[in-house]
Amino acid sequence: MITEGLKGRDFITLRDFSKAEIETMLDIALRLKADNVMRRQHTDVLPGRTLHMMFFNPSLRTRISYEAGIFELGGNAHFLEPSATRVPALEGEETAYLTERISDMARVLSRMGDAIAIRILGDVVGWEYDKGQRIIQEFAKWSEVPVINMEDNISHPSQGLADIMTLSELYGRDLRGRKLGVSWAYSPSTKKPIAPHHDFMYAASLFGPDIVFAHPPEMRIDPEIEKAIQTNLEASGGSYTVVDSMEDAAEDADVLYAKNYVALDLLPPVTQEPQHEEMSKLFEKYRDWTADKKRMDLAKPDARYMHCLPCDRGFEVSDEVLDGKWGETAFDEAENRLHAQKGMMASIIP
Amino acid sequence: MITEGLKGRDFITLRDFSKAEIETMLDIALRLKADNVMRRQHTDVLPGRTLHMMFFNPSLRTRISYEAGIFELGGNAHFLEPSATRVPALEGEETAYLTERISDMARVLSRMGDAIAIRILGDVVGWEYDKGQRIIQEFAKWSEVPVINMEDNISHPSQGLADIMTLSELYGRDLRGRKLGVSWAYSPSTKKPIAPHHDFMYAASLFGPDIVFAHPPEMRIDPEIEKAIQTNLEASGGSYTVVDSMEDAAEDADVLYAKNYVALDLLPPVTQEPQHEEMSKLFEKYRDWTADKKRMDLAKPDARYMHCLPCDRGFEVSDEVLDGKWGETAFDEAENRLHAQKGMMASIIP
Amino acid sequence: MITEGLKGRDFITLRDFSKAEIETMLDIALRLKADNVMRRQHTDVLPGRTLHMMFFNPSLRTRISYEAGIFELGGNAHFLEPSATRVPALEGEETAYLTERISDMARVLSRMGDAIAIRILGDVVGWEYDKGQRIIQEFAKWSEVPVINMEDNISHPSQGLADIMTLSELYGRDLRGRKLGVSWAYSPSTKKPIAPHHDFMYAASLFGPDIVFAHPPEMRIDPEIEKAIQTNLEASGGSYTVVDSMEDAAEDADVLYAKNYVALDLLPPVTQEPQHEEMSKLFEKYRDWTADKKRMDLAKPDARYMHCLPCDRGFEVSDEVLDGKWGETAFDEAENRLHAQKGMMASIIP
Repeated sequence: MITEGLKGRDFITLRDFSKAEIETMLDIALRLKADNVMRRQHTDVLPGRTLHMMFFNPSLRTRISYEAGIFELGGNAHFLEPSATRVPALEGEETAYLTERISDMARVLSRMGDAIAIRILGDVVGWEYDKGQRIIQEFAKWSEVPVINMEDNISHPSQGLADIMTLSELYGRDLRGRKLGVSWAYSPSTKKPIAPHHDFMYAASLFGPDIVFAHPPEMRIDPEIEKAIQTNLEASGGSYTVVDSMEDAAEDADVLYAKNYVALDLLPPVTQEPQHEEMSKLFEKYRDWTADKKRMDLAKPDARYMHCLPCDRGFEVSDEVLDGKWGETAFDEAENRLHAQKGMMASIIP
Repeated sequence: MITEGLKGRDFITLRDFSKAEIETMLDIALRLKADNVMRRQHTDVLPGRTLHMMFFNPSLRTRISYEAGIFELGGNAHFLEPSATRVPALEGEETAYLTERISDMARVLSRMGDAIAIRILGDVVGWEYDKGQRIIQEFAKWSEVPVINMEDNISHPSQGLADIMTLSELYGRDLRGRKLGVSWAYSPSTKKPIAPHHDFMYAASLFGPDIVFAHPPEMRIDPEIEKAIQTNLEASGGSYTVVDSMEDAAEDADVLYAKNYVALDLLPPVTQEPQHEEMSKLFEKYRDWTADKKRMDLAKPDARYMHCLPCDRGFEVSDEVLDGKWGETAFDEAENRLHAQKGMMASIIP
Repeated sequence: MITEGLKGRDFITLRDFSKAEIETMLDIALRLKADNVMRRQHTDVLPGRTLHMMFFNPSLRTRISYEAGIFELGGNAHFLEPSATRVPALEGEETAYLTERISDMARVLSRMGDAIAIRILGDVVGWEYDKGQRIIQEFAKWSEVPVINMEDNISHPSQGLADIMTLSELYGRDLRGRKLGVSWAYSPSTKKPIAPHHDFMYAASLFGPDIVFAHPPEMRIDPEIEKAIQTNLEASGGSYTVVDSMEDAAEDADVLYAKNYVALDLLPPVTQEPQHEEMSKLFEKYRDWTADKKRMDLAKPDARYMHCLPCDRGFEVSDEVLDGKWGETAFDEAENRLHAQKGMMASIIP
């Protein structure tokens, strides 16, 4: 267990951490989860620490898992919505008495707390692909305490951590020989982020599975992240294959991870403005991409369905699948948000 | 003191509990209240527990009494407003990326906390009489942790518990021979719920008082609950009389409980749409129904005025009454929300 | 250290406290701050106490410093926004089912908690100069627990306390012979309160500095407070001079405190309605009033720039000053909000 060099680090993308460091967080998370079952308290882990949580997008699981998590470790969360504060602004985007420069906000927040967690993606940043992450990086630049990314357009590392925790509970830490079917799925919404796909595959790629990723040709992921996934898989003994039907992803799979996400080519910076109507039309061509019983039956008999939730039932996934023998894992995955984040916070918050 | 069979139960209506079980909650509440005066801490009662509070309606007392209550028992509350989450939807009422099916929400919340408390009534459910309670029941169906009703259109059981706690502090647990005057009162608002009347009378009915209930003919209560109240009163040695003037309720009473509530016959499912304008006209006919000095003087010399608060001064009750010798009890009643709920949570949260 | 007579007091203006009492709060604040560095816990100071925080205006530092502060002392904060409650109303300004009379709110809140903190100023009170303070006083009249002013149009006493804490860390408790340059500064906003200026000078005036206060003729402060400052300075061995250029305030100063504030003569009760357009035009005449390098260079070589933050960069203060050798003190000042308020709460909350 690597224990050095974690305290004080930011948690912005999984790529900033080695496999060993991610495993340390998982080890701690599992220990805390087991103790939780026995109702052992951990309020001596981060006693008196304050976590500032800034939400620029609605959230259920993320908020309560961080809020409950820091509390269970002995600390306290502040739930900060933008309506209750000035808007953080990058240099040159400020308005007197309405915005506050991020450098100032970050310095003040880090004087009054022990970590700053931020969620910022989608509409609030005009779907500009890297803007949320740039804002989070700017906070990190000025903050003297760890900054935690609670999801931007590119990355959702705490979800990735919960995903790999769930996979390792099912199959252990060695995923070689395991087929993870990953797929785009249909939703009438055109606002579901791509970050969970990125980090599901990235986190898994460290542990050697065979990833078979199905998506319509227009629904590519970030090429840089795709490359990192491939590199990891080569090193870890796995493989990466892109296919064009959900059936191919599902066939003989141990896990089918199927979720909707936006078409990056219809969003800035590729387009000037977000093209949600275009995207809606495009999605209609793939209305049939649903994780339904027919597809799950192609997978192994004890295969699991995974989704970070909330899901759009009847579109991304059928009731039969989510409420059937395959779906319980999605709820384990949700619960593991709590435990994984506790492991991560216990590792990085000084 | 009945101690078996309470841990893990939902708290949705008082009718789900026996008199003995309700008395257990009161016993614990009184013990906690006495200790509070001595500043004894109870953080070992529910250490580390998380209470998810979902508010679909504004609230002052309910929120702070639950939030302070769980904290004083060693736990932590999450204040969840609908604006900060997806909207919970019954099956068949969902919208992609806007709503989330209750079954999914409840399962996730119960993985990350120890109880789920919900307030949902009035405008947010289109005044459909049983819709709020159906939503709460749906949460309870899927949740693996206790679900607590913080008020729907039908029931407000934590208020009922605080009411009977207040009555028992005044008169003991045997209310036989005590006259409780209960009345509708005028307000220019047509949006005040009927649930507090239901549960004030239901809670009291277990302890044998003579309830004299005054209301204009159009302002009936739920016949099923009325019947349950009558049945209880027969068993407990009390009586139930309906009259048509506040004076008759007040005369020689120990307590006058007078508060406005909606006319059920002008709301769904009786009508298609809520008829607030009609209701407003109807209420005007009874503009004089105010708990004023003239009426309180008809009651016993040491009579008390009760109201769950907030009240509409000058309409439901005069300043002279609320700020005079009669009114202090309404504030005791408000304070007892805190203690009664602590007793209830300590009883049911595992 | 005066320890008598503080428990149970309201904290509404600094003028309600003697110099010795303010020093007691500072002594405790410094002790708590030093312990914080060593990660010593203070959860035994106000264990189980509940602080109700009512915000009628957005806030970052005030909210998190109070929320973290009470938590670090063993208590819990409730963050109450007006949208989540009925609106508190003075007698005669009530609307049924929308507002609640302050007397009722205060009595209920004080039954369920240990202190009530309120911020109310600016637009929400129509810029009526004393209305926020009247509302806070009304809460104090009815509350049985201490009421804390988190800023109104007139006073911001917790800021004043943090300011004098910062000054005393720099120069000790004896400020005789120290020049504090204080100035109005330009901002395109016309909504920045005057309260911080009042309380910066009031708090400092107890300790004997030479205050040189620069403002355009139209930007007077409250004459009653100005008089109190002068009286204090006479007693403490300092002096008070009003000048009409920022240069005169800056010259040879130990500290330059420069911040924008509204023109009282363009707001009620002087005018019928707030004259923000007029004010905007007026401010344009003084566009050059910025705390920039040129002015800071007039001050002593180790001079500090102070501002309660958030500031309007490029207007009130240049980046060069805030991010240079002068500006760090403004962030110390922000951090001291946390410590000063802990000292104050530990002193007054029973």
